[in-house]
Amino acid sequence: MEAAFTRHRPVVDDALRGLLVAPGSTPVLHEAMGWMLFGGGKRVRPVICLTAFEAVGGADLQRVLPAACAVELVHTYSLVHDDLPAMDDDTERRGRPTVHVKWDEATAILAGDALLTEAFRLAGDVRAYPDDTDPRAILRVVEALGAAAGRHGMVAGQAIDMGIEDRADTEEDLLHLHARKTGELFRFSTLAGAVLGGAGDDACAAMGEYGDLVGLAFQVADDVLDLHEDRDAGGRDAAETPSLPALIGEAASRRTAAALADAAVAALARFGPAADPLRALARYAVERDH
Amino acid sequence: MEAAFTRHRPVVDDALRGLLVAPGSTPVLHEAMGWMLFGGGKRVRPVICLTAFEAVGGADLQRVLPAACAVELVHTYSLVHDDLPAMDDDTERRGRPTVHVKWDEATAILAGDALLTEAFRLAGDVRAYPDDTDPRAILRVVEALGAAAGRHGMVAGQAIDMGIEDRADTEEDLLHLHARKTGELFRFSTLAGAVLGGAGDDACAAMGEYGDLVGLAFQVADDVLDLHEDRDAGGRDAAETPSLPALIGEAASRRTAAALADAAVAALARFGPAADPLRALARYAVERDH
Repeated sequence: MEAAFTRHRPVVDDALRGLLVAPGSTPVLHEAMGWMLFGGGKRVRPVICLTAFEAVGGADLQRVLPAACAVELVHTYSLVHDDLPAMDDDTERRGRPTVHVKWDEATAILAGDALLTEAFRLAGDVRAYPDDTDPRAILRVVEALGAAAGRHGMVAGQAIDMGIEDRADTEEDLLHLHARKTGELFRFSTLAGAVLGGAGDDACAAMGEYGDLVGLAFQVADDVLDLHEDRDAGGRDAAETPSLPALIGEAASRRTAAALADAAVAALARFGPAADPLRALARYAVERDH
Repeated sequence: MEAAFTRHRPVVDDALRGLLVAPGSTPVLHEAMGWMLFGGGKRVRPVICLTAFEAVGGADLQRVLPAACAVELVHTYSLVHDDLPAMDDDTERRGRPTVHVKWDEATAILAGDALLTEAFRLAGDVRAYPDDTDPRAILRVVEALGAAAGRHGMVAGQAIDMGIEDRADTEEDLLHLHARKTGELFRFSTLAGAVLGGAGDDACAAMGEYGDLVGLAFQVADDVLDLHEDRDAGGRDAAETPSLPALIGEAASRRTAAALADAAVAALARFGPAADPLRALARYAVERDH
């Protein structure tokens, strides 16, 4: 999987850098959009999108890059809005001030809105894809991105996490929450890679299933890692949604993460060695120590 | 034009009501999304979208309704976010509390995000259009909506209006601001109607030009009407972006609005009597007293 990151991440970074040139009459807005977008993200979602594309036999990365960049734009908007004082009220991310601290709340709200809008504009722009790309495949990607990011997807997860909806306080509720907040964009990433790589319906469904499960595995493993960091820092805020380790214990959480990674690998059964980087990613998700 | 509203508005309302059923695990988020969406909006943008569709010879309204509903969703999200305390800080709209007053800021941010995301999901959903709709026409609509609403369109207008960018303080600057904040979604509405109605490139461009101009005419006429309301209420806040009447006077502003309406009608020269409702709308925009 390291190889996939080494190979794909610069391709994604270049494509993203090419997007926000020509700021026109809104240079401050564009600077604020770029602040978080180029603030050190690992590009996990676009990299697994490109890797899934290659795993189903896709060759020309330009055919999948608009979708890969779009999911990173959506992920980035969600960070900018989640950091707002009315949401998680975070003042720092990756060692730098968050957008509303560096500028102000209005700028952070608008920069997030602009990142989200640009994601769909880009994903739907036929000129961004090779000429022979099937327009129905592009539309499938646009609709899937809207479903993954929206009122039944990522935004739903954030609404549950913020306590706007019934609080998640069982293992099942928490996995439902994580599936929305994290799993949906991972599912989109691998699904879009498969769709644009020309895979059939069953292969696309299997790839989406893998994405969902590996996203959940990442999230549960993160919660276990956070538990140790939080212990060092004095524990998490009792008013927040409980973490899975807080609810079922660390050992059981590690077993859940491992089971999710196993299920993710099992979802790839139909794919050959081209899917090995995705299998490695699933194992990495639960074995890393940072 | 009254006839177009009487005929089209219930069609749009029904289609919008059908969208937010099945709230799943986020009933509060869905209620907040519906609060502003069903809070008494006039549906100007979707109605001119349907009217433009018919003006170019479109017949089956189902072919244009997803785009018409999408632009209303985008307009509604912009109202929810613009009302936030960090933006215009409005506590009431159309006689009811705004979303962040009725619920809280986090709910308003997420409801706006979900409305914007749903707009693109719907616009890109092939299943929402008749089977024989050209997928390239749908993609053109998605991309145009992203361009109209985003970093060079409506969000840019709001960023300028909020003072995030250089303040607009000449007639040219103000018209540039209004073109972004209001004109872009009107341009999208008429362009999408023409594209989905099967019009050729020149007719689509002319219809978009009409939308841009009629949107500007509406905005300048609104500013003249607001001037009287503001005078009654004690004048507008000096820290805000100046209105065109404050800058060049009421009489000159009325002349500008009339010239914009004339130019909008002129843009329709190539269309026959089917475009008469749009001509009437341009005159109505600058002659109304409310």
